[in-house]
Amino acid sequence: MTLAIDTRDLVQRFLDVRRMTDALAARLSAEDQTAQSMPDTSPTKWHRAHTTWFFEEFVLRADPDYTEFDPSYRYLFNSYYEAVGPRHPRPQRGLVTRPGIVDIGRYRSYVDEAVVRALDGGRLGEPAQRLIELGTHHEQQHQELLVMDIKHLFSIHPFGPVYVERPADDQSPAAPQAWSRVPGGIVEIGHDGRGFAFDNEGPRHQVLLSDFEIAERAVTVGDWLEFMADGGYDQPGLWLSDGWATINAEGWRAPGYWQQVDGQWTTYTLSGRRPVVPGEPVCHVSFYEADAFARWAGARLPTEFEWETAATHRAERRGQLLDPDRVHPGRAGSAMVGDVWEWTASAYLPYPGFAAAPGAVGEYNGKFMSDQHVLRGAGAATPPGHERITYRNFFPARSRWAFSGLRLARSAA
Amino acid sequence: MTLAIDTRDLVQRFLDVRRMTDALAARLSAEDQTAQSMPDTSPTKWHRAHTTWFFEEFVLRADPDYTEFDPSYRYLFNSYYEAVGPRHPRPQRGLVTRPGIVDIGRYRSYVDEAVVRALDGGRLGEPAQRLIELGTHHEQQHQELLVMDIKHLFSIHPFGPVYVERPADDQSPAAPQAWSRVPGGIVEIGHDGRGFAFDNEGPRHQVLLSDFEIAERAVTVGDWLEFMADGGYDQPGLWLSDGWATINAEGWRAPGYWQQVDGQWTTYTLSGRRPVVPGEPVCHVSFYEADAFARWAGARLPTEFEWETAATHRAERRGQLLDPDRVHPGRAGSAMVGDVWEWTASAYLPYPGFAAAPGAVGEYNGKFMSDQHVLRGAGAATPPGHERITYRNFFPARSRWAFSGLRLARSAA
Amino acid sequence: MTLAIDTRDLVQRFLDVRRMTDALAARLSAEDQTAQSMPDTSPTKWHRAHTTWFFEEFVLRADPDYTEFDPSYRYLFNSYYEAVGPRHPRPQRGLVTRPGIVDIGRYRSYVDEAVVRALDGGRLGEPAQRLIELGTHHEQQHQELLVMDIKHLFSIHPFGPVYVERPADDQSPAAPQAWSRVPGGIVEIGHDGRGFAFDNEGPRHQVLLSDFEIAERAVTVGDWLEFMADGGYDQPGLWLSDGWATINAEGWRAPGYWQQVDGQWTTYTLSGRRPVVPGEPVCHVSFYEADAFARWAGARLPTEFEWETAATHRAERRGQLLDPDRVHPGRAGSAMVGDVWEWTASAYLPYPGFAAAPGAVGEYNGKFMSDQHVLRGAGAATPPGHERITYRNFFPARSRWAFSGLRLARSAA
Amino acid sequence: MTLAIDTRDLVQRFLDVRRMTDALAARLSAEDQTAQSMPDTSPTKWHRAHTTWFFEEFVLRADPDYTEFDPSYRYLFNSYYEAVGPRHPRPQRGLVTRPGIVDIGRYRSYVDEAVVRALDGGRLGEPAQRLIELGTHHEQQHQELLVMDIKHLFSIHPFGPVYVERPADDQSPAAPQAWSRVPGGIVEIGHDGRGFAFDNEGPRHQVLLSDFEIAERAVTVGDWLEFMADGGYDQPGLWLSDGWATINAEGWRAPGYWQQVDGQWTTYTLSGRRPVVPGEPVCHVSFYEADAFARWAGARLPTEFEWETAATHRAERRGQLLDPDRVHPGRAGSAMVGDVWEWTASAYLPYPGFAAAPGAVGEYNGKFMSDQHVLRGAGAATPPGHERITYRNFFPARSRWAFSGLRLARSAA
Repeated sequence: MTLAIDTRDLVQRFLDVRRMTDALAARLSAEDQTAQSMPDTSPTKWHRAHTTWFFEEFVLRADPDYTEFDPSYRYLFNSYYEAVGPRHPRPQRGLVTRPGIVDIGRYRSYVDEAVVRALDGGRLGEPAQRLIELGTHHEQQHQELLVMDIKHLFSIHPFGPVYVERPADDQSPAAPQAWSRVPGGIVEIGHDGRGFAFDNEGPRHQVLLSDFEIAERAVTVGDWLEFMADGGYDQPGLWLSDGWATINAEGWRAPGYWQQVDGQWTTYTLSGRRPVVPGEPVCHVSFYEADAFARWAGARLPTEFEWETAATHRAERRGQLLDPDRVHPGRAGSAMVGDVWEWTASAYLPYPGFAAAPGAVGEYNGKFMSDQHVLRGAGAATPPGHERITYRNFFPARSRWAFSGLRLARSAA
Repeated sequence: MTLAIDTRDLVQRFLDVRRMTDALAARLSAEDQTAQSMPDTSPTKWHRAHTTWFFEEFVLRADPDYTEFDPSYRYLFNSYYEAVGPRHPRPQRGLVTRPGIVDIGRYRSYVDEAVVRALDGGRLGEPAQRLIELGTHHEQQHQELLVMDIKHLFSIHPFGPVYVERPADDQSPAAPQAWSRVPGGIVEIGHDGRGFAFDNEGPRHQVLLSDFEIAERAVTVGDWLEFMADGGYDQPGLWLSDGWATINAEGWRAPGYWQQVDGQWTTYTLSGRRPVVPGEPVCHVSFYEADAFARWAGARLPTEFEWETAATHRAERRGQLLDPDRVHPGRAGSAMVGDVWEWTASAYLPYPGFAAAPGAVGEYNGKFMSDQHVLRGAGAATPPGHERITYRNFFPARSRWAFSGLRLARSAA
Repeated sequence: MTLAIDTRDLVQRFLDVRRMTDALAARLSAEDQTAQSMPDTSPTKWHRAHTTWFFEEFVLRADPDYTEFDPSYRYLFNSYYEAVGPRHPRPQRGLVTRPGIVDIGRYRSYVDEAVVRALDGGRLGEPAQRLIELGTHHEQQHQELLVMDIKHLFSIHPFGPVYVERPADDQSPAAPQAWSRVPGGIVEIGHDGRGFAFDNEGPRHQVLLSDFEIAERAVTVGDWLEFMADGGYDQPGLWLSDGWATINAEGWRAPGYWQQVDGQWTTYTLSGRRPVVPGEPVCHVSFYEADAFARWAGARLPTEFEWETAATHRAERRGQLLDPDRVHPGRAGSAMVGDVWEWTASAYLPYPGFAAAPGAVGEYNGKFMSDQHVLRGAGAATPPGHERITYRNFFPARSRWAFSGLRLARSAA
Repeated sequence: MTLAIDTRDLVQRFLDVRRMTDALAARLSAEDQTAQSMPDTSPTKWHRAHTTWFFEEFVLRADPDYTEFDPSYRYLFNSYYEAVGPRHPRPQRGLVTRPGIVDIGRYRSYVDEAVVRALDGGRLGEPAQRLIELGTHHEQQHQELLVMDIKHLFSIHPFGPVYVERPADDQSPAAPQAWSRVPGGIVEIGHDGRGFAFDNEGPRHQVLLSDFEIAERAVTVGDWLEFMADGGYDQPGLWLSDGWATINAEGWRAPGYWQQVDGQWTTYTLSGRRPVVPGEPVCHVSFYEADAFARWAGARLPTEFEWETAATHRAERRGQLLDPDRVHPGRAGSAMVGDVWEWTASAYLPYPGFAAAPGAVGEYNGKFMSDQHVLRGAGAATPPGHERITYRNFFPARSRWAFSGLRLARSAA
């Protein structure tokens, strides 16, 4: 059952989300907002423009009162919607120095005003309102990407710039690992239609599970240091074949952003390079590393169905979500949603009966359903209000630039 | 329940399998057996030696009466068993010109005699006998690879050599597409332990399925020509994102080995280049192409669970399996096992409760359980006696050099 | 004979050159100054900082009164001086978003003042003064690179930004090709020591030449269109083997920056994309293309010795040098210096007796003396006062982003 | 002045050269003759066929009495003659397993008989006879390549096969380095037309040289060990920029084929891996290494003009040329021709007045005149009778698989 949309709530949500993007960008110079550090990432400038393009393309273009801001933007700021027409090649986004951030700020204001005016003027029916709602969730996804991408860019800088100052780390240890048992049986998986969800979270359907156990907290930095000390990165028997090939080709011997400085492990954070904190959840590990760690620990990753079932049983606590004054996971606690995304054992595939929406907007999620793994929960870069227990995040097994960690599971005795 | 092994049957099976490998190689010159056409493939010479190494390494090495044939072979002919020690880098297998095929023939005879002598002499207990049984199935896998690899090598040759002559193709059309309905519910999936199976076929476990329909026959060359004529390769909306990127990067506009010659589509077969035959199952398509075709056809690929359930309901007919005098699929019929392997919608992941065997032999299947898709059935290069309804074959989504096709499914109304 | 340096002239020259760099950058936004479009190029921001670093490193560092502006800059803005210490990897220059252009402007002012103060204070002896002089010529080289690099960056932008507006092109035709004969014999080659020269222009030495003829004007766009119309890019017999491989690998069928738009050839200029102008010298061709054109024309490229000898015989006319309000070659005339650099037949090798200066500054030119070809003259991006008849510019044979053209020669009958 | 050809001498030379090729191949199995170890090399099988193709294409094809052996060979065994038509891509030569070595043996005999019959029958005029003569020199070039290519292939084999057994190495030390002075002035360079020469050795012309000194012997293994011990590979100031980049990208810290085994330097030779021999000339070094060594030694490489002039002054002694029972340089002595090819300071460029011959055979040498350096002398893989003082060999600066060493020069005081 889908609820009707309240227009005033929608305007409010729209403006809140739009403001958050600009707040995240406000700490970045024009230079920072221009660079693209690898083909997987995008410039801040581009995120700001592309999220704006989404509203222009899918909402405003149909409005006869609307005048396009700049026709060239349609080409420049389309991400991957093949149905919309040709688009600028992704790896060259960092070379599009014009329009600059001042123009893009004007573009954002122009579209914001047009959307609000159209909503207020009652010119947008429910389908368009649904697209605005979708657009705000789309923009929140890009807020998370923006943070991930800036962190990647700054991590490459030889002197690790500070995005935001924050206090010294909480050095208190994490709770010892503990397990909770979850009964199996036929469970309901997927979004129930109350409130917003992405298309890939449905259809809701039944899955048969066996009893299993799931860890009370995420794997921590301290756990990971034990794994490293035990030669975890040197034992081929712990690794998937593609994982072993990847860590050797890349020279990985620690999580992403970690470096040993004077014999001490440090990690780049958006507050600069700092010593790693044993009580925090480990972050910026690939699926391959998560999988190898679980094998080393005598456990395994949960499937996404187990994860969702376990999360449904828990209290609705949240770990650290996006706070522009922190942008870093909290101490590992009992929340399943927040701090770090958790790799699952599941490949990213459609739920039974899934069909993409018709038209360009249907390219949203379905076409990525191969060659990726599902992560569940949410991370320290996920905007509050964007997280859901049924949310399916996904990345290739080798990716490490998301705020990605893991939680252990095992089959019940 | 695992049955005891009859030693005389085992000797017979061992010798039969070993002879088949040599029969397949007998049509190939020393030069043919040396070349490696891409990193994924191996020289015939290497397949012949590696399958022999398997028996030497896992069976004979423990026999105090056995004297190693040549110590350098342990390094040269290990494929991917990290636990055994260093191994020769895979992409350079075509550069190891020595030992030559005469030496490898001697190595094979030497090991054959040692295995039979040890078995006859009662020096091998049941664990070793199980490893010999595993070794014969391992060798049958390599027979299929040998055929695939030679086909790939010859396909690159500018004049498409003939591996075996065979008569003109049967031009009779395939039956029209028809569907059969399979009831859902809780089904049993995986091998039941009667007779041999690979570790990845278990543990047997329960899966919940909805009712579905499955096509009576595989998708044919004729069907594929319609897809091509309808611009199937030019419509991004039909493709997964990685699929669209792959076909454009590779320039694919038809199945593997197809070329247009004087306006007519032809395909390289092991009997030389021939016009494509509309009544045959389409072959040498990637997962991406199979998935796009299914979407175009208003259907989808079956999951591996649906496939196995449907196959269990069918009569035990077999399509074309490996016949050294043909090595090409037969006309598309109602058999689900044979002719072409069928891509499923399932990623290659462990069954619940799967654990690899301890020791080097445990590297057999489990470590490949990421970044691949499952194919079910069997193909025209699969040795008879090697096929099973529970068999899980797997390749990366972009692979086309297996004898890979597809069968459509759809959810029941 | 090297003349003494007049300090007041030096201060003036220093300030003039420094101002020109900032004038060139002033039309570029922070975003424009940040991007790096290929590994061969550098961001404007980097050119501005690196030329400043040169004075800090080689002149000010020895001054006890000098306080370093920022210690991290030593690492960030070293280009290739191995003797100075580690340096930031070249292909990632576009990712160093901090310091930004405001900081770099401050860095420039700070160093400018320090240099002038040190000169005025009489604290810099002749060796340091020579290094300042060298630094100004070094900065002029980077002015030319800055212009080349911005042109390359903007040429990739889908909508070809305008760096500077300029009037419509002069469409008057070039003079017909004509030849002038130059007598051979033993000639003097290289700089005579009067005024500044780079180390690679000496030692002056004797070379034996035969009589030859040299074209009165550079090869024009109109000439090149004839070459293209005659299938010049399709005849392997015209091309060096590496040239043929290069144009086919790159898909080159016209000079750099040319594109056919509605059946008309256009070229990207710093005033935007415009129709090509037949009376202008052809520009942005590789050595391979210059060599093939010459063969097609029944001629050849001059050696750098022939070129220098011919230039010495000519009147001291100059073609178009760097004019920030034009930045584009003039109509092909009789000047040998200006408009476009001219590829010669000579590989870039040391003159007999050449030895690099001791210390880091000796890495200036000598270490590039392999795998490159010599260009002579000067181009429309060469700052006035930087050009010399003995100047030896050099690029790999495949390079096209310099303002590079050609002039024909032939042996005298 | 070109002498007339004596037909009987030509038949004899033709048969001698043809037999040498087969003698070199006779020690190699079908497998050895098939593999191609890198894009720069070719399979033995291919060399044997291509040298035969040369006679068929350029001599026999014009003979109306001649029937082509197999039409597919024209495509398969063309090397780089664009004018002859399409050709098989070079990096895939190792994948053409058919025809095999038996067929290629028959092809060789067939063409041998046809050439001799045509010569004996007086059907070939002087142009054709000149092409046969050229063909024998062409085949000698390929004999050297065949040896180089097999050495490269075997060097990659994990157990370094023995091509030919040979006695223990002569451990006597080389003579101390000494210099001989050569007077400069105007010298004649290039072939004088008496006897055979390749087109690139002419036209003979005058060059002006200064007085210089040249080393009495080549640089030895012992000299090179000193260079290594002094950190030669670790001092950027000794290296050309492209050289420094190359040795670091490739990880070179010693000449090609050298490996440290138990603290002792060894080198792969065609008689297997052996300890390096201090009294032998260093071999398998790149131009970059030769250039850096010379700089380290306070000397330089001679230009090819200096080299040729010095060689003309020497007695006509020869060092080690191709001996199929050795295939390895001799002890460093005073001969300038033999043992190892010597890198010169000269880029490979046309002599003044050079023009390629018309037609396909004109593609012989001229089209490689860029991006390479000249080597002079001859090496231990150069067939006797193929060497000449005016011979210009050439390879890219990074190549090491030729038998390449160096000799020092310096300008006279």
